[in-house]
Amino acid sequence: MKKSFASDNNSGVHPVIMEAIRQVNHGYVIGYGDDPFTETALAKCRKHFGPESETFFVFTGTAANVLGISAVTRPYHAVLCAESAHLHVHECGGVEKYAGCKVISVPSENGKIYVEQVEAHLAGRGDEHSIQLKVVAISQPTEYGAVYSIEEIKALSSYAHSHDLYLHMDGARLANAAVNLDKSLHQLTGDAGVDILSFGGTKNGMMCGEAVVFLNPWLAKDFKYIRKQGMQLGSKMRFIAAQFNAYLSGNLWYENARHANNMAQYLASRVKNLAGITIPHPVESNAIFPVLPGEAIPLIQKEFFFYIWNEMIHQVRWVTSFDIHKEDVDEFVRVIEKYI
Amino acid sequence: MKKSFASDNNSGVHPVIMEAIRQVNHGYVIGYGDDPFTETALAKCRKHFGPESETFFVFTGTAANVLGISAVTRPYHAVLCAESAHLHVHECGGVEKYAGCKVISVPSENGKIYVEQVEAHLAGRGDEHSIQLKVVAISQPTEYGAVYSIEEIKALSSYAHSHDLYLHMDGARLANAAVNLDKSLHQLTGDAGVDILSFGGTKNGMMCGEAVVFLNPWLAKDFKYIRKQGMQLGSKMRFIAAQFNAYLSGNLWYENARHANNMAQYLASRVKNLAGITIPHPVESNAIFPVLPGEAIPLIQKEFFFYIWNEMIHQVRWVTSFDIHKEDVDEFVRVIEKYI
Amino acid sequence: MKKSFASDNNSGVHPVIMEAIRQVNHGYVIGYGDDPFTETALAKCRKHFGPESETFFVFTGTAANVLGISAVTRPYHAVLCAESAHLHVHECGGVEKYAGCKVISVPSENGKIYVEQVEAHLAGRGDEHSIQLKVVAISQPTEYGAVYSIEEIKALSSYAHSHDLYLHMDGARLANAAVNLDKSLHQLTGDAGVDILSFGGTKNGMMCGEAVVFLNPWLAKDFKYIRKQGMQLGSKMRFIAAQFNAYLSGNLWYENARHANNMAQYLASRVKNLAGITIPHPVESNAIFPVLPGEAIPLIQKEFFFYIWNEMIHQVRWVTSFDIHKEDVDEFVRVIEKYI
Amino acid sequence: MKKSFASDNNSGVHPVIMEAIRQVNHGYVIGYGDDPFTETALAKCRKHFGPESETFFVFTGTAANVLGISAVTRPYHAVLCAESAHLHVHECGGVEKYAGCKVISVPSENGKIYVEQVEAHLAGRGDEHSIQLKVVAISQPTEYGAVYSIEEIKALSSYAHSHDLYLHMDGARLANAAVNLDKSLHQLTGDAGVDILSFGGTKNGMMCGEAVVFLNPWLAKDFKYIRKQGMQLGSKMRFIAAQFNAYLSGNLWYENARHANNMAQYLASRVKNLAGITIPHPVESNAIFPVLPGEAIPLIQKEFFFYIWNEMIHQVRWVTSFDIHKEDVDEFVRVIEKYI
Repeated sequence: MKKSFASDNNSGVHPVIMEAIRQVNHGYVIGYGDDPFTETALAKCRKHFGPESETFFVFTGTAANVLGISAVTRPYHAVLCAESAHLHVHECGGVEKYAGCKVISVPSENGKIYVEQVEAHLAGRGDEHSIQLKVVAISQPTEYGAVYSIEEIKALSSYAHSHDLYLHMDGARLANAAVNLDKSLHQLTGDAGVDILSFGGTKNGMMCGEAVVFLNPWLAKDFKYIRKQGMQLGSKMRFIAAQFNAYLSGNLWYENARHANNMAQYLASRVKNLAGITIPHPVESNAIFPVLPGEAIPLIQKEFFFYIWNEMIHQVRWVTSFDIHKEDVDEFVRVIEKYI
Repeated sequence: MKKSFASDNNSGVHPVIMEAIRQVNHGYVIGYGDDPFTETALAKCRKHFGPESETFFVFTGTAANVLGISAVTRPYHAVLCAESAHLHVHECGGVEKYAGCKVISVPSENGKIYVEQVEAHLAGRGDEHSIQLKVVAISQPTEYGAVYSIEEIKALSSYAHSHDLYLHMDGARLANAAVNLDKSLHQLTGDAGVDILSFGGTKNGMMCGEAVVFLNPWLAKDFKYIRKQGMQLGSKMRFIAAQFNAYLSGNLWYENARHANNMAQYLASRVKNLAGITIPHPVESNAIFPVLPGEAIPLIQKEFFFYIWNEMIHQVRWVTSFDIHKEDVDEFVRVIEKYI
Repeated sequence: MKKSFASDNNSGVHPVIMEAIRQVNHGYVIGYGDDPFTETALAKCRKHFGPESETFFVFTGTAANVLGISAVTRPYHAVLCAESAHLHVHECGGVEKYAGCKVISVPSENGKIYVEQVEAHLAGRGDEHSIQLKVVAISQPTEYGAVYSIEEIKALSSYAHSHDLYLHMDGARLANAAVNLDKSLHQLTGDAGVDILSFGGTKNGMMCGEAVVFLNPWLAKDFKYIRKQGMQLGSKMRFIAAQFNAYLSGNLWYENARHANNMAQYLASRVKNLAGITIPHPVESNAIFPVLPGEAIPLIQKEFFFYIWNEMIHQVRWVTSFDIHKEDVDEFVRVIEKYI
Repeated sequence: MKKSFASDNNSGVHPVIMEAIRQVNHGYVIGYGDDPFTETALAKCRKHFGPESETFFVFTGTAANVLGISAVTRPYHAVLCAESAHLHVHECGGVEKYAGCKVISVPSENGKIYVEQVEAHLAGRGDEHSIQLKVVAISQPTEYGAVYSIEEIKALSSYAHSHDLYLHMDGARLANAAVNLDKSLHQLTGDAGVDILSFGGTKNGMMCGEAVVFLNPWLAKDFKYIRKQGMQLGSKMRFIAAQFNAYLSGNLWYENARHANNMAQYLASRVKNLAGITIPHPVESNAIFPVLPGEAIPLIQKEFFFYIWNEMIHQVRWVTSFDIHKEDVDEFVRVIEKYI
C-alpha cells in the first residue's frame, strides 16, 4: 500500500529489528522470559531507565497503560488525565474495566495538564463518597504531539509525590519526545519523577514491543502476577526481547524518532504557507494537526489516507514515521496542493 | 540452547512462518486488522472453521481463553473444567478476574471430563444463592495429552446445548489432536458442537499467534470491543495475520503437528521398556507423562531441562515439537539411560 | 439532635413505617423474600409501576443505581449522566468498579441533560477503540432539585430507544418530583419511557428501603443473581417489604413528599427577599440552593448543620423532609437573619 | 407462619432489638454513621473485640464476607476455604466477582479445614502462572454446625501468619460458637489470631445487622471506601447501630445464642433415639444435621418447612433460633414421630 500519513503504526518493522528477530530464531530457550535474550534486553532497559528500574514486556500499548495503572491502584482510586488521553478515549474503557478505577478527564488544548487541574480534583480526599485520586497520567508527547518540558514534568511529579499520588507517563512515542528535548530516556522519566512508564516501541519501528517500566522498583513487586493474569505474558518472549535489544542498542530508537520528527518538520514547513492551511500548534514530535479547507479533506484522503481529528474545525492529523521519506512528503504535498 | 523436552513453546519459529512475517514487511497498511493480509488470514480461518465462523487474533493463549469465555458469560455464571485445565491452574486466575466467573474444577485422571460431571453441577440452577453454570470448558488435547474422540465431544456439546450451556474448547494444541484423530479442524470443532474455540499456533511453530474462533457467529457480535478492552488488539496486525496465513496454507499446521506427535511416539517407544520407567497414559499427541525413578530426575534434568508434573509419584512431562528431531530424541534417551 | 437542613436522610423513620415494621415482627417466615409480606409489597409496586414491571428491593441507593445499570450493560459500555449526578460524584466509583463501565459526565447547570448532549457522545459508535454508550442516566429530581417535565423525559427516552440505548432514572427522591408534576409514579417512569428506575424510599421516611424497578420486564431476567452476587439480598426481607407496603399504601409516599416540598417552598419564600441571599434556581422539590454571603455560612452552620454545595460562589444546599415543620423553618430563618 | 426449622433467619427480630430501633427514632442525626448512636455501638464493638479493632456495619453477611476479603486481597490472590463454606457455595460467586480472586475449596466432612490442607495449596507460591494464596477463610461455627476449638484456630492463624496469609472468619453465627466454647468474642477472634471477621447478628435476633471487624486495625485503613463503593454504606446508620447497641449490651447476644444452642440440644436429644434417625455429627451450635428415612422427609416438610442438606444420603438441616421454644420442638418432634 502507498505510504500514508494516518499513523506511525501503519508502517512496517524496521529492517534492523526484523533482522534481530530472525537472529534469535535458532534452537530452544525456556519460555516466558527466562532466557538469555530477555535477560540482555532487560539489562539494556536498566541502562536506559536506571539500575533500580524494573521493566516488563507486554504486547500492546493499551496493556502497558492498563496494567501499569492497575499495579498502583485499587478500584476506589481515580486516574486523572487530559480529555485527549489515549487511555481515556481510545482504549475502550480498559482502565475502568481492569483497574476498576474512575478516569477523570480534564480539558486541555494541546493534551498537556497542569498542577492546578490536579489540585482541583483533590477536593474529595478522605471523603468516602468520593473516588480517591491516586494517579496523574500524562502522555509524552501528548496525543496532540506536544512535548512536556522536563520542568513541566517535575512540577507534576513533585506535586504528585507530596500528595500521595503517582505520576504515570504514557510514552507510546517517548522516543520522539526525547529527540525533541535532546534528553536521555532517564532524564525524561526517572530523573523527572515519573513513577510508572508505558514505553512504546511499536510506533517507532518494532513489530509488537511495549513495556511497563517501574522507576520505583517496589511498585513492581507483584507485577509479574498482574502481567500474567492480565493475559500479557508471552511464551516465546525472546522475540519481543530481540526487538528491544535491537531498539535500545546503538541509536536505533533515537535515529528512528529523529527521522520521523524531521519529516514532520519538513511536512509542516512545506504546507504551513499554503493558502487555507493553518497549523495551530507548534510541531514538537512526529505529528502535525493542520486545519484545512473542509472540502479539500475528502479529496486528499482519496489519495493519501489519514484521520480527521476534529470534524468541527476541519482539523486533521498527519503522522510521520521512520519509514516516511522526503519523497513521500513531497508526493503528499503535491496532492495537497492539487486540492486546496 | 540445547533442545529440551520441557515445552513446545521453548522451540523457535518455523522457517516458513518466519519467512511469511518477513514477506509482509514492506510499506504501509492500515493498522488494527483493516489490511489485506488480515483479510486473507481470516478467509483461511473461515475455510477451516466454516463460512459462518468468526475469528479474532490475539497474542496469548490465556487471552484467547479468558476473552472467549468473557464473550458468553456474565459474572454470575460459572465455567466447569477439569482440575488440570490450563485455565484453572496456569492462568493466574484470569477467568475469575476478567470474566468475574467462578471456575468449578472436577477431578479427572487424564484431563477429560464427562457429561455426568457436568450434570452434577446443575443442582443449583435457578437458585439465586448459587452460581449458574454456563460454560463447559474442555482442552483438546488435554493437559495430559489425551485426545477426546469426536463422539466424546458431541456427547458434551449436545448435553450442553440442551441445558443452555456453551461448550468451550481450549485448542492450544488443537493441531496435534487433529493429527491423532485424522480429522479436519472443522470436524473437531464446529461439526462436533463446539461453540467457542481457543485456536493455538504458538506451540506449533508460530511466534505469537492465537485466535478466538466463534463457531456460532452471533456469539461474536460484540467481541471486537471485548478484544480491544481486553488489551489484545494489535496495531501491526499484519504480522500476526502473516503467521496464520502461512500456518493455514498448504499443510504446515498439520505437518508440524504430525512431526511432533511422531516424535512423541518415537520417544515413548524408546523409553517405555526401560527398567523403572512406566508411561501410565496412552500417547495421543505430542507429550508423554512417564513415571521415573525419583533419584534419576534431577540428574537427567541437569542435561535436558523438563518439568516435574506430579512430585508425589515422580511423574514428569516431556513435550516434543516441530523442531525436535530423531537425533534429539536419541541423545535424550542416551542421557536417560545413563541415569536410570 | 436539633433538626438540620443538611439532608433528608438525617431524618428518622416515619411513625407509620416504623409501626409497619413492628407489625410484621411476629413468628416465622421464609427468608430472602419468599414471604407473604414481600409478595404484597411487590404487588403494590406493580400497581404503581405497571403490571409488567418487576421490582427488587435493595438496601442502598448506590446499590440500586449500580446494580440496575449492571443489569443492562457489559464492561465495554458507557453510562452518560450530568456532571452533578450522584452516581458520578457520590458513589465512590461504584459503577466503574461493579459494572466496569465508563461514566461519561456532561456539563449541566441544574442537573438536567438533553438529547444533544447524548447525541454528541455517539460519535464512536461501532469503533472498537471507543467505549460504546448504552445507558443515559438521569436523576429525577436532579441533584439540584430540578424536575424534568414528562416531555423532557420522553424526548430522552425516544432518542435513547431509537439509538439502542436505555434510559435509567435515579429516583432517590422520585416522590418529590411526582408531587411537583402532580403525576403518578407510572406516568413519570414507564409511561415516559424509563427502562430502569432506582426508586428511593429512605429519604422520604423509610429506614432502609430502595428498589430497582425494571419497567421492561425482560431486562429483569437475570437480576435475581445480580442482586445476590451484588450483596443486596436481605434475609429478613419482610422488614424491607413492610416499609414499602406502608409507603405505597394510602398516600404516605405522596404526603411525605408533598410536605417536604411545601416546606422547601416555605423556606424559599421566607429567605428569598433577605438582603444578600439569592436563589438561582426555581424550587421544584424538597431542596433549595441559595447563594449566601460567604462569611455568614460558618456562623449559620454552627447552629444548623448543612452542606456547602459550591464553595466558589458560596452556594449552599438546604433540604427539607417529612419531619421538618413550619416551626423548624421559622427557627432556621431566625438564625439566618441573625447572621446576614 | 408456623415456626419452622429451616433457618434461624426465618425468625423475626428480638423484642429488645426492635425496641432499641424504635428508641433511636426521634429527631435528626447526621447520616452515614457520623452520629452518637453509631459511636456508641462502635465503642461496644471495641470493648468486645479489643481496643485496636475496627468495625464497619454492613447490611448482609455476603457483603461482610466479600468486602472483608476484598480489603486484604488483590485479584491475583486466592482464598482457601472448605467446600461447604457459605462464601463458596451460597454467595453466587460474590468473591470472584468483587475481589476478583479465585476461591479454592478443600474437602471437609464437618466444614472444618486444617493446616495440611492449606500447606498443599502453597505449591505455586512465587510462580506467576499460579494464583497466589492469600486468605484462609473459616466459618465459626461451620456450615455443619461444628465449632473450631481455640487451639484449632490458633494452629491455622499461626501457620497463616508465618506464611504471609490472613485468617478470615465467617462468624455469621459466632455467638453460637462462643456459647459452645464458653469464651468471649475476643478470645475466639483476636486472641486466636483472626485477622478479619464477619460478625453476624441477623441470624441471632437482629433485623439486618452484620459487621466487618478488622482485628488488625491497619487492615482497615481504606475500608471506608471499600464499604461505600461496595454499596454497603447505609445513610440512616443509627438504625443498624441501635441493633448492635442492644445486641452487645448486657448479654443479649449471648442469651439468644445460648437459648438457640439449648434448643438444638433438646431437639437432638428428642430425636436421636428414634428408629431410623441418626445424627452423624456432634451438635455444637444451633443446628443439627440428621439423616432420616428418605420417604419421611417430604411428609414432615409438609408440616414444618426445612431444607434437605444432602439429597443422596437423606441428610437434612434443622436450625433453631432465639425464637424457637420447647413447645415448638415438642410439636415438631410429634410430627417427626408421626412419619418415621
